[in-house]
Amino acid sequence: MTVNTSTTTELVDITSELLQLVAESGIKDGVCFLSVPHTTAGITVNENCDPAVTQDIEAALSKLVPYLGDYLHKEGNSAAHIKATLMGSTLTLLIKKGVLALGRWQGVYFCEFDGPRKRQVLVRLAGLS
Amino acid sequence: MTVNTSTTTELVDITSELLQLVAESGIKDGVCFLSVPHTTAGITVNENCDPAVTQDIEAALSKLVPYLGDYLHKEGNSAAHIKATLMGSTLTLLIKKGVLALGRWQGVYFCEFDGPRKRQVLVRLAGLS
Amino acid sequence: MTVNTSTTTELVDITSELLQLVAESGIKDGVCFLSVPHTTAGITVNENCDPAVTQDIEAALSKLVPYLGDYLHKEGNSAAHIKATLMGSTLTLLIKKGVLALGRWQGVYFCEFDGPRKRQVLVRLAGLS
Repeated sequence: MTVNTSTTTELVDITSELLQLVAESGIKDGVCFLSVPHTTAGITVNENCDPAVTQDIEAALSKLVPYLGDYLHKEGNSAAHIKATLMGSTLTLLIKKGVLALGRWQGVYFCEFDGPRKRQVLVRLAGLS
Repeated sequence: MTVNTSTTTELVDITSELLQLVAESGIKDGVCFLSVPHTTAGITVNENCDPAVTQDIEAALSKLVPYLGDYLHKEGNSAAHIKATLMGSTLTLLIKKGVLALGRWQGVYFCEFDGPRKRQVLVRLAGLS
Repeated sequence: MTVNTSTTTELVDITSELLQLVAESGIKDGVCFLSVPHTTAGITVNENCDPAVTQDIEAALSKLVPYLGDYLHKEGNSAAHIKATLMGSTLTLLIKKGVLALGRWQGVYFCEFDGPRKRQVLVRLAGLS
C-alpha cells in the first residue's frame, strides 16, 4: 500500500484503505499485520474524529524531540528517526465479523516525520478459524 | 475482556485474566493478540513486582506530556491521547507450553489515561503448530 | 535467542541472527513474532546504516527520561523501566519471499537500558498461506 505524504510531519489516516483491503479479502475472523519499511516514519492508532488530536500529537512529539539538537547523525533528520521509534513501525489489528476491530473513535495513521515522500505500508491479512 | 478503571491515570494489571483465558483455550503453542479499542488508553508490559514501577511510569509520562498545554483539541484530554499513542494500542504476546511467555518480572498492563471508565481489551488467541 | 549486552544503555543490532532464523525455517510467506521477556529492555526497528542514529536515539531517551529523578522504585533503575515501556517489548515483522520484509535502511534492535546483562529475545516464526 502506498502513502503519499505532502509535508514534513504529518499523520495520514489510512483507515479507509485498510477497511477496503479487509473487505476484499473476504476474511471474517483474523488478523491484520501492518509494517512500515521506513526509519523516519511510523504507524499508530488514534482519534479519527477531531483533526486537532493528530495535530496535538505531532506538536507534542516535536516538543519532546526538537528538530534541532546535539545530534550526531549528519543528515539532519535525527528527530524524525527518534519520533518514528517512539511511535513504532509495526501494528497488529484484529479482524472481527469481516471488518477491522477498531473502536468507535479509532483511525489508523501513517506517521510521516521526514516528508514529503512516497511511502509504503506493508499489509498482511490472515484468517484465523 | 472488560477493565473497570477507578481514577484518571492508572496502569491496571490484567495478567491473571489473560493467563486464565490462555489456560481455558487449551492452546499449547501460539500467539495472544491484544488490542485496545480506545484512543485515550493503551497497553504495555512492565514490572509486576514493585508497584512503584508503574507509578514511576505514570509520573514520567505526565511529566513528558503535561495535562495542561497549548493543545488544540477542545475536550481537554489531549494529554491522554498523546500518552496512549506513546504506549501503543496493540500487543502481541507468545504462548509457550500452554502459558503466556512472559518474563519472570513481567505483567501486562492496561494503561488508563482518561478515566475512570469502563474499558475493553480485545483478545484473540491463535494456536500455531 | 540470546543477546549479551556490554554496557548500561545500548541498541544491539540483531537483524542478521533473525535473517538466519528465517532462512533456516524455510518459511516463504509469514510472520516473525518477537517478544522481549525483560522489564528494563525493549525492541525497536531503526536505521542500520549510520550508527550515529542509534546513538541519537539513546541520547534522546536519556534526555526525556533522566537517570536520576523523583522515582519511587528503590532499585535505582526506574529510567530503564520507563524507556523500555516507551520502546515496547513486542514486534511483529512480516516474512516475504523467504526473507524478513524490512526496508532498505531498517535493522532490528534489542534495546538494553540496564546492562550489561545476558538477555533473551523470544522468536516465533509462522508461515501463512
